[in-house]
Amino acid sequence: MIIVMRKGATEAQVNDIVERVRAAGFGVHLSQGEERTIIGAIGGDRAVLADLNLEAAPGVERVTPISKPYKLASRDFHPEDTLIRIGGPTVGGNDFWVVAGPCSVEGRELLLEAARLVRDGGAHALRAGAFKPRTSPYSFQGLGEEGLKYLAEARAVTGLPVVTEVMDTRDVELVAEYADVLQIGTRNMQNFSLLREVGRANRPVLLKRGMSATIEEWLMAAEYVMSEGNHQVILCERGVRTFETATRNTLDLSAVVVAKSLTHLPVVVDPSHGVGRRDFVVALARAAAAAGADGILVEVHPRPDEAKSDAAQTIGPAAFHQMMHDVAAILQVLGRRLPAAAAVHV
Amino acid sequence: MIIVMRKGATEAQVNDIVERVRAAGFGVHLSQGEERTIIGAIGGDRAVLADLNLEAAPGVERVTPISKPYKLASRDFHPEDTLIRIGGPTVGGNDFWVVAGPCSVEGRELLLEAARLVRDGGAHALRAGAFKPRTSPYSFQGLGEEGLKYLAEARAVTGLPVVTEVMDTRDVELVAEYADVLQIGTRNMQNFSLLREVGRANRPVLLKRGMSATIEEWLMAAEYVMSEGNHQVILCERGVRTFETATRNTLDLSAVVVAKSLTHLPVVVDPSHGVGRRDFVVALARAAAAAGADGILVEVHPRPDEAKSDAAQTIGPAAFHQMMHDVAAILQVLGRRLPAAAAVHV
Amino acid sequence: MIIVMRKGATEAQVNDIVERVRAAGFGVHLSQGEERTIIGAIGGDRAVLADLNLEAAPGVERVTPISKPYKLASRDFHPEDTLIRIGGPTVGGNDFWVVAGPCSVEGRELLLEAARLVRDGGAHALRAGAFKPRTSPYSFQGLGEEGLKYLAEARAVTGLPVVTEVMDTRDVELVAEYADVLQIGTRNMQNFSLLREVGRANRPVLLKRGMSATIEEWLMAAEYVMSEGNHQVILCERGVRTFETATRNTLDLSAVVVAKSLTHLPVVVDPSHGVGRRDFVVALARAAAAAGADGILVEVHPRPDEAKSDAAQTIGPAAFHQMMHDVAAILQVLGRRLPAAAAVHV
Amino acid sequence: MIIVMRKGATEAQVNDIVERVRAAGFGVHLSQGEERTIIGAIGGDRAVLADLNLEAAPGVERVTPISKPYKLASRDFHPEDTLIRIGGPTVGGNDFWVVAGPCSVEGRELLLEAARLVRDGGAHALRAGAFKPRTSPYSFQGLGEEGLKYLAEARAVTGLPVVTEVMDTRDVELVAEYADVLQIGTRNMQNFSLLREVGRANRPVLLKRGMSATIEEWLMAAEYVMSEGNHQVILCERGVRTFETATRNTLDLSAVVVAKSLTHLPVVVDPSHGVGRRDFVVALARAAAAAGADGILVEVHPRPDEAKSDAAQTIGPAAFHQMMHDVAAILQVLGRRLPAAAAVHV
Repeated sequence: MIIVMRKGATEAQVNDIVERVRAAGFGVHLSQGEERTIIGAIGGDRAVLADLNLEAAPGVERVTPISKPYKLASRDFHPEDTLIRIGGPTVGGNDFWVVAGPCSVEGRELLLEAARLVRDGGAHALRAGAFKPRTSPYSFQGLGEEGLKYLAEARAVTGLPVVTEVMDTRDVELVAEYADVLQIGTRNMQNFSLLREVGRANRPVLLKRGMSATIEEWLMAAEYVMSEGNHQVILCERGVRTFETATRNTLDLSAVVVAKSLTHLPVVVDPSHGVGRRDFVVALARAAAAAGADGILVEVHPRPDEAKSDAAQTIGPAAFHQMMHDVAAILQVLGRRLPAAAAVHV
Repeated sequence: MIIVMRKGATEAQVNDIVERVRAAGFGVHLSQGEERTIIGAIGGDRAVLADLNLEAAPGVERVTPISKPYKLASRDFHPEDTLIRIGGPTVGGNDFWVVAGPCSVEGRELLLEAARLVRDGGAHALRAGAFKPRTSPYSFQGLGEEGLKYLAEARAVTGLPVVTEVMDTRDVELVAEYADVLQIGTRNMQNFSLLREVGRANRPVLLKRGMSATIEEWLMAAEYVMSEGNHQVILCERGVRTFETATRNTLDLSAVVVAKSLTHLPVVVDPSHGVGRRDFVVALARAAAAAGADGILVEVHPRPDEAKSDAAQTIGPAAFHQMMHDVAAILQVLGRRLPAAAAVHV
Repeated sequence: MIIVMRKGATEAQVNDIVERVRAAGFGVHLSQGEERTIIGAIGGDRAVLADLNLEAAPGVERVTPISKPYKLASRDFHPEDTLIRIGGPTVGGNDFWVVAGPCSVEGRELLLEAARLVRDGGAHALRAGAFKPRTSPYSFQGLGEEGLKYLAEARAVTGLPVVTEVMDTRDVELVAEYADVLQIGTRNMQNFSLLREVGRANRPVLLKRGMSATIEEWLMAAEYVMSEGNHQVILCERGVRTFETATRNTLDLSAVVVAKSLTHLPVVVDPSHGVGRRDFVVALARAAAAAGADGILVEVHPRPDEAKSDAAQTIGPAAFHQMMHDVAAILQVLGRRLPAAAAVHV
Repeated sequence: MIIVMRKGATEAQVNDIVERVRAAGFGVHLSQGEERTIIGAIGGDRAVLADLNLEAAPGVERVTPISKPYKLASRDFHPEDTLIRIGGPTVGGNDFWVVAGPCSVEGRELLLEAARLVRDGGAHALRAGAFKPRTSPYSFQGLGEEGLKYLAEARAVTGLPVVTEVMDTRDVELVAEYADVLQIGTRNMQNFSLLREVGRANRPVLLKRGMSATIEEWLMAAEYVMSEGNHQVILCERGVRTFETATRNTLDLSAVVVAKSLTHLPVVVDPSHGVGRRDFVVALARAAAAAGADGILVEVHPRPDEAKSDAAQTIGPAAFHQMMHDVAAILQVLGRRLPAAAAVHV
């Protein structure tokens, strides 16, 4: 951390900072320029230093962190890619992971139909929400545990591992009983209680980026999960909120490449929420693969016009097959592999 | 809701939409122009219609809602201002409500000192966090139940009602035992499970606006709480996230006037988080009062440089007194009142 | 345009609007619901209606446009893709257009070296700025006319057409003398005087998206150029401004697919400004090609560390060759072509 | 400037940076930690250093500026408030400056009527656009020179100095002939050619903040004007672009207090564009005064419903008088003065 003192800061003020930094376990490097003094805090624990709130101390103009605030999630700490095995395929290495399915579990029959559709089309996991975060309290909120049961049945029938959202600390255990991957939704990315709770679960976590979260905050959210002992975190870019209204969100594919440079965790992309419009999903799935994402999460429905939620951004069978074809070809260009779907522990 | 059909939509497509709208319990008004047909859906339940996802139906170009998606929170539904009594003063009417205190409960002595300071300076309620949402899992996370106990003691000693944050559905009952007002933080504004849970509590809720929440989403979050039976919701503007980095957030005072035109609920302002820098808090507290806010929530500490969290934006006694003086004078200009602090049910 | 009247709007208010709409040359469709009246304005000239400012009239709650505000730029008006011939290759059809070169014209020798490098690597046009928009008045502002002369020489030597920025209405004629394509920078996207002036020039225009321009505003800027008679406009996505600070801008590849659905004009991508960091340019160039862009604009320098401006985002020869290889392979997957560079009218 | 080297940067890389920094005229302070070396560049010309693009050099992780990139605009350079005399009143000191009038010059009679209205209501200057930046090329673009003549006549009749926009470098001389203050609109805040040109004019400049400009970029735009010799710059906050759609822009009153701490230039607020809705203008004008702005710029029209542009945000006589009354009372609280309107050099 670098502490820049104001022009005209007194010697006493400088000494006070130096002492507090040393007391916090840091080494100190002092640069006394003509106009300003700059104090470098070397080594030590950044969180401890942050809690000193030096930026509020008399004479301090600015405090600039040098090291990253996350550790377990950092590539500095763990240079090799983390590989997470979910059913057969491995997420985060050379393989590309495709998760597909309807927005929500609408009913048993439909879910089974959708699961077979995406399995036969080459997906590696099934996604569908049993607990749905809806902007309106009057909208369909998901089937809850009943939905989880259908998901388990769909897994039994198709062999596809199941990715589904958990929204409440009280439900983590329940959802973990049925699901293979626990999804944290964009609105809960900084629900720190929930992050801690899934950090104690024995299931990989798919962590969606918050609607207006910086990449650093996203990695800090992963750090919350990891700090509880669960290192199986998959990051998912799903578009951020901007001024643009033509798309539901603004899909930030730069975030994929930046995040992959900063962390060893896998990074996947949700083009469905990213753009919010069915016609554009395939193009952005291709772009995600080309940018270097480790997988995609796509909303697919046998008859998308009838989907109970997110119909506008859900693709049908034809678009799904087109997407799988295009993505496979692009992966080949990049020397990556779209693995054949493998069965889970059925 | 207005459904605009595409140029060249077929008669069958138009008829299909008309039938689905009627089946959902709406009346239909049909406008057939030369180029396009426009369908007005009149009456009925907007959430039901929204779940039809008509924007995905063949032939539809755009669906534009006319009515608001919230009901209980809407001024159309409840034209008079909602008044919420918290201790002596009433929030939401002609009175202005000042909530002050340290960012977090750091310890017993300090909290009592701070409580006396703000009470003597004219505040109407005490704020301080026992559960703290921190970006880093390695930062101070609050004292938890111990902190709640100190808050209860501070109330007993000073007579000030207590406003404090709850972050986990499992803690709502516990926090409600100690606190007079349950605060929902900006990161949890769309934690729908938590909103429902505080909606079942018998305590007023202070609902902070999400970091990138539109005013409509903020009111929908209030609707979640209200839909569970708890109509005592106080909205709190605390700055939104923008591209600007000179301030921690961008305080949106327009949101106060807009929200007050749309809802009958009280709207208060948190200038401390809004601007994030101590030197600017008083000016923005004045601006909030001048804009027509129903109160302010301010971080105050006897020795702000020593605050364990948010030190950079916490003001000390002198600034607090200046603020109270300025705000009182501005309220007088507007014909509003800064009530004397009244004791709670001690 | 749809005019939604307030609950309780009087008959006189409704009649007043109906009359004003008719007087503006529109047909009227009236929908009288139980609670509200909705007026549809059909046909007529949207700009005329916009200038009536009906949203300010008594009794009006909201005015929602139905038709698009642009005409010449709209795909409704001109369904087939516009093809623009620049030197040999054609921009906007099946071919992919690569424009490469240093950020600024730094000197004669270097420009020639860079031009040969990108020509030999397969680029179709040379980019470099003679007039540079710099945030600081104290930074290098470009070589001006001297730079234009070097650009013309580079074209003569390599056969590559030249793309260069014009920043001042007074310079349009001068720049058009030397350049094959006039570039409008992001900061001037709504410099309407400049847009009109290049609209009168006899040169294709490369129109960068404004830093916080919506896609609609971008197309309106194109409409300004086209309304003066110059229909040769190439749109260029170059990242938008968001809260994220890890990248210089947030590259919005959704904007490419959305824009191409709304307009017949070619849409290209500038990954260099989009992400602002050299290491990530190639990945985002691949993603742009995969998303369906009609070309890319990339900053390339023989020795990027020595570049006088934008060094951090400028790639060198090795990355450029890698990029050309990857992009060519991805285009093949999509059935598009990376044409051989063809000579201009040398 | 502080240059943070990567972990594992070689001695040669460090030496290379040190040499380049020294060659650019800076002193060097070297901090060698266990993990990283940090290089402080002391003194010297920041723009020169910025042009070195050290962030692209091998071994460099990050470059953090310490000093501000603007000089003439900086309060460090010029600690006392700049006072700008416009007609009688002085802008930037203890006095509060009110500029009012219609959005555009619509015609001679109406302008005179509006000018008398705002003069009699206590405004100190008249605003109205003769050249109008309109999103659509098909909207009313202003009366041009004819409008300037009417403005001059309105000044002659009422004694009010005139503030009006200039959009084209070629028009600066013409507009300066008629106007007392040259306004640079939000879309031209980084039209550097125009900034330079008004920097050579002998008229104060009112510089609106760009729609998504940081405060630093805004001050850099002022620096452009000042670097040409014209130090009479008035900054005008007018709302920034965010995700919120309920208001036209998001008025950023924090920017006023932050800017005033960084610069000696006066800072005024345009609540009309800031919020974009007539009903809310008065509340935000009050808030601007309470926050410490040096003045306001407000759209006022004798019959706002008939305004040819910006009708939705234009207030009428009653609201204008209310606003002047409230603002005067708030200024009194703050010990500031709303001066009586004084005549210009008639």
